[in-house]
Amino acid sequence: MNQTIETILNHRSVRKFTDKELTQEQIRLLVEAAQSASTSSFVQAYSIIGVKDKEKKKKLSELAGNQQYVENNGHLFVFCADLYRHTVASEMEGKKESAQDSIESTEKFMVSLIDVALASQNMAIAAESLGLGICYIGGIRNNLVGVSQLLKTPDHVLPVFALVVGYPDQQTEKKPRAPFQHIYHENEYEQDVEKYKQELQEYNNEITAYYQERTNGKRTDTWTAQMAGNFEGKSRMYMKEFVKQKKFDLK
Amino acid sequence: MNQTIETILNHRSVRKFTDKELTQEQIRLLVEAAQSASTSSFVQAYSIIGVKDKEKKKKLSELAGNQQYVENNGHLFVFCADLYRHTVASEMEGKKESAQDSIESTEKFMVSLIDVALASQNMAIAAESLGLGICYIGGIRNNLVGVSQLLKTPDHVLPVFALVVGYPDQQTEKKPRAPFQHIYHENEYEQDVEKYKQELQEYNNEITAYYQERTNGKRTDTWTAQMAGNFEGKSRMYMKEFVKQKKFDLK
Repeated sequence: MNQTIETILNHRSVRKFTDKELTQEQIRLLVEAAQSASTSSFVQAYSIIGVKDKEKKKKLSELAGNQQYVENNGHLFVFCADLYRHTVASEMEGKKESAQDSIESTEKFMVSLIDVALASQNMAIAAESLGLGICYIGGIRNNLVGVSQLLKTPDHVLPVFALVVGYPDQQTEKKPRAPFQHIYHENEYEQDVEKYKQELQEYNNEITAYYQERTNGKRTDTWTAQMAGNFEGKSRMYMKEFVKQKKFDLK
Repeated sequence: MNQTIETILNHRSVRKFTDKELTQEQIRLLVEAAQSASTSSFVQAYSIIGVKDKEKKKKLSELAGNQQYVENNGHLFVFCADLYRHTVASEMEGKKESAQDSIESTEKFMVSLIDVALASQNMAIAAESLGLGICYIGGIRNNLVGVSQLLKTPDHVLPVFALVVGYPDQQTEKKPRAPFQHIYHENEYEQDVEKYKQELQEYNNEITAYYQERTNGKRTDTWTAQMAGNFEGKSRMYMKEFVKQKKFDLK
C-alpha cells in the first residue's frame, strides 16, 4: 500500500463544495495529469473545456438536471470526445477525404470515448491526491443539443461528461462495489448463470445493509432493483441519432 | 507535487517485461483499485478477464498483431464493456423485456465504454505506483471475433482492450503531448481554425525534434502525418457490425 493506492481506494464522489476556486496553476497541473494518460496510437482524441463563466455554469447545471454542485464548485471541466483535431490534421496532410470513413467509424467513436475517459480519470486521481473532491457529471448527456450549443463544439466533437472539482464541504461514504469474483474472471467469462445470480443476490444483501445503516432503516434497496429501474427508465434514447448528427459512429 | 501526481506525470508505456508473474495478492489489489473508480449511476458496466493460461496468452498475442509483450508479461487483464450483468439483474427483477431497449442503446454503449476505461486507468496508475510497468493493448480489437470466442464472452459483453502489467525490462521515454492550449479550451470550444492549425504545426515541430533526437536524425515524422496515415488506413471498419452482433449500440 502506498499513498497513490490509498487515494484510489478512498475515492468517493463529493457533491458539495466550498466556494473556493481552483487556481490557474491547479487547473494546468490537472490538465497535464489528464494528458499524461495512455492514448490509443497517440491519437489524443479528446478535448477539455474548462467553464469559468458563471452564467454558463448556471445554464449547464440546468441542462444537467439542476444539480447545485454543477454550478457551485472549484472548477468545472467538460470532457469531450474529439476527432475534429484529426479532420484538421488530415486536411493539413491533404488526406481529408481518405481519412473521413475512419474518422466517422464506430471504432474511432470507441477510441475517442476510451481516450477521454482515461484522461479524465487521471485528472480525478490527481485532484483527489491534492485533497480536492470530484464528481463526474453524466447528467450533461441529458441534453447534449443544449450543451453543444452552449460550448460551441463543432462536428466531430462530443461532450460526454463533466468533472467538477473543488474543496469538499461534506463527508461522504464509499458505496460497496460488486464482489471481486463477479467483476474478475479467470481465463474466460464465467458461464454459470445460477452462480452468477447467486453472487448478485449476495451483493444485493450487502447493498441493502449499506442503505439500511445509512438511513436508519428507512431505505430498502438492492443493486438489481436499482439497475432494473434505471434501465427500464430508457433514458437518453436520443443519443443514437445525436452522435450521428455530430459525425460519430456513422460507418 | 506529490507521489501520486509524480506517478501520473511519469507515465510511459512499457513493452518489455521480465518473466516474473504478479502474485494473486497483487492481482486482487489492482482489481480493487479498478473497482474504486467512479461508475455512471453505479452501473459498474465492465468486467475484467485475467488471462493466465499460456496457450490463451499466445493466441491473444497472435490475434492482437503478434506483439511479444502481450504474451510475455506479469499478467494480462482483458477489459470488457459489460451490460450482460444488467440483463441478468433485470431478469431477476422481472423487467428483462422493459430494460432491453435501454441496455442495447447507444447511450449505454457509451456508458459501458466510459466505465471500463475509468476502471482500467485506476488499475494502470495503481500498478505504476507499485513500480510496475503497463501497456494498453488496443490490438485485441483487430480481431474481436477471435478474442470473444477465446474468452467465451456472451452477448452484451465486448472486450475492448487489454492491459498488460509486469516488471519492466526496458527504459522508455515519454512522448510529448499536444500543447495545453490545444487540448484545453476556456468557456467554449476554440473556433479559430488558423490558430488551431498553427498550434498543430508547432506541435509537429516538437514531435519531429523528439523523433530526430531519439533516432539520431533517422526518423522524420510529424503528429499530423501520423494521424492522417493512421486514419487513411481505415482500420477495424468491421466494428460497426460487430458491436451490433454483440447487442450494443442498436437503439
